[in-house]
Order: sequence, then C-alpha cells, then structure tokens
Amino acid sequence: MADTYDFGLVGLGVMGQNFILNVADNGFTAFGNDLDPEKVKALIKLGGDENKINASVAVTEFIKALKTPRKIMLLVPAGKVVDIVIESLLPHLDEGDIIIDGGNSFFTDTDRREAYLKEKGINFFGAGVSGGAKGARKGPSIMPGGSRDAYQHVKPIFEAVSAKYKGEPCVTYLGPKSAGNYVKMVHNGIEYGLMQLTSEIYDLLRKAGSLTNEELHKTYALWNEGRLQSFLVEITSKIFEQKDEFGNGNLVDQILDKAKQKGTGKWTSQNAMDLGIPVPTIDIAVSMREISALKSERIKADELYDRPTPESFDKKELIVKAENALYFAFIITYAQGMHQLADASKEYGYELKLTEIAKIWRAGCIIRAALLADIADAFKADENLQNLLLSTYFVEKVQETVDSVRELVAYGAKNGIPLPGLSNALTYFDAYTSTRLPLNLIQAQRDYFGSHTYERLDRKGIFHTEWGL
Amino acid sequence: MADTYDFGLVGLGVMGQNFILNVADNGFTAFGNDLDPEKVKALIKLGGDENKINASVAVTEFIKALKTPRKIMLLVPAGKVVDIVIESLLPHLDEGDIIIDGGNSFFTDTDRREAYLKEKGINFFGAGVSGGAKGARKGPSIMPGGSRDAYQHVKPIFEAVSAKYKGEPCVTYLGPKSAGNYVKMVHNGIEYGLMQLTSEIYDLLRKAGSLTNEELHKTYALWNEGRLQSFLVEITSKIFEQKDEFGNGNLVDQILDKAKQKGTGKWTSQNAMDLGIPVPTIDIAVSMREISALKSERIKADELYDRPTPESFDKKELIVKAENALYFAFIITYAQGMHQLADASKEYGYELKLTEIAKIWRAGCIIRAALLADIADAFKADENLQNLLLSTYFVEKVQETVDSVRELVAYGAKNGIPLPGLSNALTYFDAYTSTRLPLNLIQAQRDYFGSHTYERLDRKGIFHTEWGL
Repeated sequence: MADTYDFGLVGLGVMGQNFILNVADNGFTAFGNDLDPEKVKALIKLGGDENKINASVAVTEFIKALKTPRKIMLLVPAGKVVDIVIESLLPHLDEGDIIIDGGNSFFTDTDRREAYLKEKGINFFGAGVSGGAKGARKGPSIMPGGSRDAYQHVKPIFEAVSAKYKGEPCVTYLGPKSAGNYVKMVHNGIEYGLMQLTSEIYDLLRKAGSLTNEELHKTYALWNEGRLQSFLVEITSKIFEQKDEFGNGNLVDQILDKAKQKGTGKWTSQNAMDLGIPVPTIDIAVSMREISALKSERIKADELYDRPTPESFDKKELIVKAENALYFAFIITYAQGMHQLADASKEYGYELKLTEIAKIWRAGCIIRAALLADIADAFKADENLQNLLLSTYFVEKVQETVDSVRELVAYGAKNGIPLPGLSNALTYFDAYTSTRLPLNLIQAQRDYFGSHTYERLDRKGIFHTEWGL
Repeated sequence: MADTYDFGLVGLGVMGQNFILNVADNGFTAFGNDLDPEKVKALIKLGGDENKINASVAVTEFIKALKTPRKIMLLVPAGKVVDIVIESLLPHLDEGDIIIDGGNSFFTDTDRREAYLKEKGINFFGAGVSGGAKGARKGPSIMPGGSRDAYQHVKPIFEAVSAKYKGEPCVTYLGPKSAGNYVKMVHNGIEYGLMQLTSEIYDLLRKAGSLTNEELHKTYALWNEGRLQSFLVEITSKIFEQKDEFGNGNLVDQILDKAKQKGTGKWTSQNAMDLGIPVPTIDIAVSMREISALKSERIKADELYDRPTPESFDKKELIVKAENALYFAFIITYAQGMHQLADASKEYGYELKLTEIAKIWRAGCIIRAALLADIADAFKADENLQNLLLSTYFVEKVQETVDSVRELVAYGAKNGIPLPGLSNALTYFDAYTSTRLPLNLIQAQRDYFGSHTYERLDRKGIFHTEWGL
C-alpha cells in the first residue's frame, strides 16, 4: 500500500470528504487523514474500493501511503490549526513534497509558512477553493499560488477536479507566494458586495413594489436568464421558493436578519485601505453585516424615529430599473475588486494576470457570473487596464444602466429604504468619473491646521500658505 | 543647572518648539533635546531666559537637567523613531521616570512600549495631542493614557498647557495602556469624516447653487455662528476668502484636488472592522481620499461618460437644507466614532468615560464643535448609552434634519454630484433604525452555499436547511 496514492488530504469535514471523492472520480487515488476516527471511517465507507480511496488517523500511515513528491492538501480551519498540522507532517516529509493549504488563510500567514517550509525543502501552496460543499464535490474554482515548478505536479489533479467553463478548467497557477490566498480573499470581498446588493434590491422590490416571495422568485429567476446570470442570483431565486419546514410560510421570512461573517470580506477592505485602493462597495457590505448584528439596538432606534411611508412605484418599471441597477452595481463591485488585485500584484510581486483570474471565476466559484466573460475579455484586450470603467467593453453597459441607479438611489433616500451598496456604487462611479473633486478643500484644511502642504493645478511644486494672513 | 527643569521634550520641530514655549508660558521650566543643533539653537534663542527654557543636543545633558521623576515628552514622527529615541534615553533614566509619546503612534505599538518600559520601571504614556502647531502653542487637547499613578506627576503641566473650555482643561487621564493613542486615533477618524462632509457640501453648493467663493465664505461663516460652530467649519469659511499669492483669484481654486493621508483615518476604519463596529462615514472619507489620488484615471474616465447637467436649486433653500444635512451628518459621524470608542474600551480594557472624552474635545482639537457639549451631556445622562442616536438629546435634532438629507442625497444621485459621506450617513441612519433589514437573505445565501447555518425569528436555535430539496 506504500507509495501508491496520488493525493493526500488532511481534514475530512464536508469540504475535505467531498474534495477527495471528486479527486477519485477523476481517476486519481487519494488518501485521507483526520484526527477523528469517525470521519476516517465515514470516508472509507463512502470511498468503496480502498485501492482508490483510503484513510487513516495515523500521520505515519498517511505519509507512507503517498507517492513522492507527496501532494498533501489541508482542508482545516484557517489559523493555528494550519500550523499545527504542518508541524505534525513535517518530520515525515521528504524534500520536494508539496503541502497545499486549501483554506481561507490570511495571505501574510501563507507568506510566512511558504518561507519557513522553503528552508526545509518543502513546497507550500496557498490555494483558495471556492464553490462550497457542492463545488468541492462537483468542481470548484481553485486559486493556487506558490512555486511555479512545483505546481506542475499538482496541475493534472487540480485541472481534473476543478469546474469547467466551456471545457476550460477553473484553475490556473496564479503567482508566487500568497498570490492564491490573496486572490481568494478578494474573491470573497467581491462576494460580500454582490450579496449585499442582491439583498438590498430584494428589500427595495418588496417595499417599493410589494413583490411577494413568489414574484421575487420569478424575478430573480428571469434575471438569471439574462446578463445578470450568476450563481448568487440563481440561488436567490431558489431561496424565495423554499417553504418553511415548520409550516410557517416561506423560510426566508423566518430567518433572523443578523448576518454573520468569517472575516474574509473584512480583510479585503482592510487590505485595500493599506494599498490605498478604494473598494467602498465592499466596505459597506462589511458595515451592513455589522449593523445587522445590532438587532436589539435597531429595534430600540426604530421606536424612536419616524420613517417615511414608501411612495408606490409601478411594479413592472421597478423590476426593469432594479435589474439595471443590480447589473451596474455588480460591474462596479468587480471593478473595485479587480483594481485591488492589480495593485496588490505590484505591491506584493504576484505577477497576477487579471484575464486568467476572471476566467477561472467563470465557473465553480460563488461569484461566477456571465459578466466575468466580459471582464476576462476587457483585460485580455488591455493587460494594463487600470479600471474596468475605463474599458470600452464596459462604457456602454455602465452608461445605459446608470440612470436607473440614479432614480432608485434617489427613491431609497427619500423613502427611507437603505440602499447602501447601490449608493456607494453610484458615488464611487460619480467620483471616479470626475475630473474635479472637492478635495482641494480638504488639502486646504490640512495645510491650514497642520501645515501639511498642497500641490497646485497651475504650477508644479509643493506649497504651504500661512492662512488668514 | 542639574535637576532643575520641570519638563523635558525631545523633538524640536514646529510642534515641539511650540509645545515647550507653551509649557514655559505657564510657569514651568522646560528643557529641549534634538539631534539637530540648529533646532536646539533656535529654541534657546526663542526661549530667552535660559533658566526657564534651555536645550541641548546631548542626551546626557538633557537628562541631567530634569527634575525626578523626569517627565520627558517625545514629539517625533510615529514609527521606528520613537523606539530609537526610547533606546537612547533608557540607559540614563531612573526608576519612576515618565516618557510621554505625543505622536500619532499606532495603539498596539504603544501597548508594546508600555509593557517593555514597565519591566524597566519606567512609566510610558501614549498621549495624543490635537490642535496642530497653533494648538501646541496656545493650548491643545491632550489625550493621555498610561499609569494612573504616574499621571499625577504630569497632570499639573498638562492641565496648565491644554486648551480650556469655559475654564475646564481639555485634558484628562483616559485609561490604561494605549487608551490615549486609541482615543486620538478615533478623533482623527472623526476628523476625516467631518472634512469629507464639509468638502462635499461645498461641491453641492457650488454645483447646485452656483455659490461664489465669497458666498461660500459667508455661508460657512454664518453656519459657524450657529449649531454647526466648529473649528473645521470656521477654517473652511476662512479658506474661501484666501486670495492666491500668485494673483490667480482665490487660492482654493488653484489647489490640486488630490487629498493626502497620514494613516490615522485608515487605522480607525481598519480597527473598527476588527471590532465589528460600523463606521461607514469614516470608511468612505478614507475611500474618497484614495479616489481623489487617482487624478489621471479620473480625467480619462470623465471623457468616457456623460454626466447629467445639475438641475437648478433655489439658492436660499439649498443653503438651509445643506446646513441641516451637514448638522445631521456631523452627528452621525460623532455617533459612529463614539460607538467605536465604547466597544474598544471593553475590548482593550481602557475603561473609557465617553463624557470625559467629549469634554476634552470641546476646545483645542481639530474636531472641536459646539455639538460636543450636547454629546458630553448625552453620555453624562446615560453612561451606558450604546449609540448617540438612542439618546433623547439627539432624537429631535436628527429627526428634524433628516428630511433635508433625504432630499439632497436624492438630488446628488440624480444630478451626478457625488455625496458619498452624506449618503453613507443616511443609509447608516436608515439601517440602524430598521427593526428588519434584508440580511435574512444573506444568511439564507450563506447557508445555501456554505452550510453556515442561520437563526430564526420565531424560535431559538441554530438551523441548517438542505436548500432546493
């Protein structure tokens, strides 16, 4: 049994179990490892032929079973557990072996681990995996970063198990060091933005158009047939038809409106700020989850303030405008995320190819969307594109939808329906497309109180004024 | 000359020089130190009587000159310089001596330094100083955190040199460890928000109401006579009347609209995200500085897109509504910052008293404003107030101004005038005062694709659904 398995996987939770079954489905043999004997047993039972899938709680047995160079994927919770697992494997590994962290590790942790393991002759990959449990089983989008040479050993397996978009595998070598985790982090930031947008459009449709769950289901389903076609719009449509198992109407109406977060959206926003790249649609998605968590305060506040009664809006017209608005705001959200990736690539030396990233997101992952094919084309046409909004592929799409956004944001503001994601997408657009912004005043204020100096429009140099003299 | 000076100060830049002159004005003797002999000479010359103010480039001479326990303030750039200066002082200090870092150090750096110096018997204070160069000279707001006992030695000097609000000194002991730096960081985050708001209202007034600089000057000056009375509104009014020294009309029109930042606003946003506290008005102020920096992209983008021509707005009405809106958004910005402080106090064990913080901000600092007296009262009336919006002091003020915000945000959205700070203040308000938010959909999506579970409105427990079955 020694040295016979193609692929090793530590962490046999739902994701790990599904991923290993997926590997085996694609003709590779795989060996699992988990501290929990129940999970090991469950996998062996599910796996059938033990020459194809096997597992053990014993690290030594696990390591011995794998072909060299060993390809060992970790699907364990991000954080200390990753370090603990690495330390437990390390004494048994040989030079050239490959460890792949498939979790949402923070990218600086990946850099640290990669450098540490490189000293010991071990290749370390941070490889974000998106697509949830179902994706892991049927084909996820995989975002690996690390040594380009070592990737050749992993490539056949990853290409086989990944999702396919018109036959193209949704995985590619992204770049050195933590490139993979970084790309996955921004993927999740974009995901936060898109989820916030779908949720506030839902709020608008029910409050302004009195759409029932059945109508919401049909609306999102119809949208999913068009340019908004995407995994999130698709599942949103399905969510609205899910009946409550307790017989209480539709399930969505019984779910508590406090959204949780695991931190990857927050990291995207925080790191964008370190880079100096504006991603306000992602920032506000993080804020809205935080506000949602303050349920008891919201209830108190609601009692203290009056709110306008929403004016009625023609239902058909509302749906058309909402589709325009969602499409516009999706574009803006991807534009912000891609902008962050472009800058991070320079800052961290990732050498990212944005076309390739858009391509591997076209299937398998949570943010998969028809729009990504256009995004891939835009970056293919111009590798140095600074922002999607500057691409000729997008000017028309944005221009023809922005008026609906203007109208709906205005409606939301007047009628007390919070549309924070849409508002931020619009103000981002209006600011980004403004030759002149009023931040000359901010520079004047900074120079006034802190002698921070300013530049001028009409001549070069750094200036300071003794204001008020 | 040994052991005779009350106060030592390292770093004789503009802030340091001014601070030491301020100390001497208040009857204390002070000794300065700087690596630069020119700065040492300049201070000695300015100081006059060398028994009151003296200085040296030599650390040994500097240390010898100070009464024990020595009180040594550092006004040097945040970062490594602080550590270098500490190390250079350390061999010469005695147990019980006090080092005060008056710069904008990141709070975790202060915690590290405080712990390190405590082991050596030295008291370390992080003490944010706000008010710019003029504040340092005439009376800043000072925000010290560290050992309560050691503060007694510093207190008489700080209370004497600080700004006064109706006789009360704008300094108080804030709490242990990095409490002082943390409060100063949030002060600066609020400052970012208020500056963004004053700048976008300026944009609105000139674009929608065609106000001239003279009219802008008068408008902000008038506002500064009322409930908006604040340092930032006051200097904004003065900025609009400043003539260009090159004879090119008003200076404000010649200043490049790229706003710089030194990082404290960014830290506020990033740390608020770590705490899970929503501060979207501060976040967007950071984003807008970033967008402003992308000037060349903005020029390109401006050429690609059409923008609506702003509809005219009655000038008088516009000014009234803009004043309402700015007042509303100022309240929201302070509310977000205070919320962050309340949570940070619990998280980091600062034991902050929000009433005291609002009080020491009433004069001397950049965010000083008439509004802070109301904020102090609100927290005095209820020490455990979760959010200013829940205070009876604020309900009426907010309710009577929100309709103007609704109208102006709607106007900005329709007419292509970006009002990101105002929009975020409004959506924050509308979300915070909503018993129900649409984030039940986000929880449904998360459970759908990631089995992340959800809670329910109608029964307790954690639930998961096999969606689509």
